[in-house]
Formats: sequence, C-alpha cells, structure tokens
Amino acid sequence: MQFSPLIEEMIQALRCLPGVGPKSAQRMAMYLLERDRKGGETLANTLSRAMAEVGHCESCRTLTEEKLCRVCASGKRNHSVVCVVETPADMLALEQTGAYDGRYFVLLGHLSPLEGIGPDDLGFDELLQKLKDEPVEEVILATNPTLEGETTAQYLVELLAPLDVKVTHLAQGIPLGGELEYLDGGTLSRAFAGRRGFDQEASS
Amino acid sequence: MQFSPLIEEMIQALRCLPGVGPKSAQRMAMYLLERDRKGGETLANTLSRAMAEVGHCESCRTLTEEKLCRVCASGKRNHSVVCVVETPADMLALEQTGAYDGRYFVLLGHLSPLEGIGPDDLGFDELLQKLKDEPVEEVILATNPTLEGETTAQYLVELLAPLDVKVTHLAQGIPLGGELEYLDGGTLSRAFAGRRGFDQEASS
Ligand SMILES: [Zn+2]
Ligand SMILES: [Zn+2]
Repeated sequence: MQFSPLIEEMIQALRCLPGVGPKSAQRMAMYLLERDRKGGETLANTLSRAMAEVGHCESCRTLTEEKLCRVCASGKRNHSVVCVVETPADMLALEQTGAYDGRYFVLLGHLSPLEGIGPDDLGFDELLQKLKDEPVEEVILATNPTLEGETTAQYLVELLAPLDVKVTHLAQGIPLGGELEYLDGGTLSRAFAGRRGFDQEASS
Repeated sequence: MQFSPLIEEMIQALRCLPGVGPKSAQRMAMYLLERDRKGGETLANTLSRAMAEVGHCESCRTLTEEKLCRVCASGKRNHSVVCVVETPADMLALEQTGAYDGRYFVLLGHLSPLEGIGPDDLGFDELLQKLKDEPVEEVILATNPTLEGETTAQYLVELLAPLDVKVTHLAQGIPLGGELEYLDGGTLSRAFAGRRGFDQEASS
C-alpha cells in the first residue's frame, strides 16, 4: 500500500533535496498538499524558472540569471585583486564580511580525482586567460581549508607561478576541516586582513 | 549582499517546506543549481502537477488525484466497518499493517478551537450522511492519542450515539502523545486486534 501514484511521485521528487529522506519527503508532501498549496505552486514555478534561467556570470563564473553578477557589474570594485573561491556560497560569505572590495573567480568545485573533477572542470584555463587579458596585482586563493581545497590551492600556486602576480592565501585562523560558508564574519574579516604570501612573508 | 534575485527567490520559496530554515534552503538551492538541475526540474514539474491535480477521494476524503482512492475503489474491502483517521498518512500507516480490511473516513485534521478548526472542516456531516446511506456495523475511531485527537473522538462518539452502530477505538497500547503515522506496524496491529467499545467492554 502506498499513496496515489502522483503523490508517490511527488514524495520521490522531494528526495532530490539534500538531507531529505523518505520520512521527511512524505511529511513535506503531506504538508504542502494539506496546508500550503499556494506555497507549493510558488515553489514549483520558481524552481522551474531557476533551473532554466540561472547560469553563470560570464566574468567570474558564479551562479546568476544575469550576464554579469552584481560584483562584476559594479563600477566600484578594485580590479587589481582577484579572490578565487570554490562556490557561490563562499563568495557570498566573503562579500558579507564587507572586508573585501576586489573581484572574484568561482571554481564551482575543487580538484577531486575520486569524483573525476580535474582542472578542466574548474575553469583554470579561463582564469589564466583572464589574468593575461586583464593583469592584476594579487590573486587571493580562498579555497576551503580542507584537503581538497588545499590541494586545489597548491595546484593553482604552481599554475600561476610563471605570471607576474602575487599569490596569497587567507590567514590561518580559519579552522581546519571547516566549511568557509558557515564561518562568522569576524573570523573571515581577520583572515582577509592577515593574508600571507605563499613565500611565508606577510603580504602587507 | 545577496545572491541574484532569482536565486534569492528560490531560497525563499524553499522555505515553505516544513523544517527548512534559511541555511537549509540556501544549501538546497546551491545543491540543485550546482549539481542536480535534472532533479530540480523533475521536482518543479511534479510539484506543479500535484498541486493542481491532487484532490480528495469522493468517498473517504483522503488525498488522491483520482475520483476514488485505491481502498475505496477496491472490490475486496469489508463494507461493514469504517475507520476514522485524522490524516492520509495515518490511513497509510494503518494500511501498511495489513491488519485491517474495512474502509476509511479521513477527517483531514482534528477539532482545534485555537486553530479555528470545527466540525464543519472535518466532514462530520459527510460522515453522518454516509453512515445513513450505507449503514455499517462498526465505526473505529482511530484519531491520534493526543489531546485534540481524543477530543475529536469524544465529539464523534456523541454525534454517532443516535445511530445504530457500534463505535470502538483502538486499544490502549498506542503511546499517549504519540503520532500514529510514526508507530511501528506491530504496535498498530495489536491496537487493532484489542480495540474496545466505548462502553469499556471488549468488542470481540
Ligand atoms: Zn561575476
Ligand atoms: Zn477513498
């Protein structure tokens, strides 16, 4: 015995959401059907539009439905610094500190041989080309302080070595194994201020 | 600083789901956009169809996109017993025990003066009419063992008293304050077997 076919389909579809198991999916389906049809319709419409229209910023690769994200479209950003992050959520977390006024490059992942994610998937060529077309003074590598994040940063250090650009990383102070997007603004601000060159000297 | 407007709209829309706060909604949005567009599209389509097409069984009021639910449409059910439950999920939980072969009536809620839910919202008239049109021998009140569930059952006992029908409730053994849909099948089966008349005598 199950619910009707369409309800079962809906419960199944809700399980594509991260952290949603069979029981949560059933609870969500019952809630929407019994108490919030309006909310369910809005979710369906918004989701449908977002899946179709959200692409990537032509300049920094972050997620956006516009050609250029707001940071790249802004006339007020410092063009001499580029901060490389793994995800749009990391970029948002850094923006929310208000401690940084440069630009970004979003990898949309990290190197992970196990998951089959290599340099081609992370836009490294695009980043290199960008740095050749519009030279900057400093590239800040703000990948997550995890094994994959550090590996990705190390790979980029070598890739960028031939270029005439200072390569820095965020100051220690960001906890090991942590996820950048969940850190508080104060910690992130301090990490920006204390960023160091890969030659181990203070950059400021 | 926020994500782009459409992404923010999507995060907001995901919050209509029960148990989903701002951080979970953001995580879900990023996951769908970065890693599972297909899943997001399927969810949008299914949700849209379910919100539009799922209505109520014409006979027992449970949620279904068909005129009659599978239980009501089945030729194999015992028409002399009706089991009254609060929700479609409760009905499913009872069905899954395999301990019951009668029919159901789904209240789609319980009496709750605080939430403004009265007898009119729970189909009591419909139930009465049904019992007059197609007389049954027994009505099992299987509302949840909560304050609201017990109040609802008590109200129904009085409402059904004038009719020539035995009114029973599930045996104690279902824990007080518990939610019927989360109980295991064994407990529910025993509760069916041990159901008692409201006059405190065993019904079998
Ligand atoms: Zn951008
Ligand atoms: Zn039915």
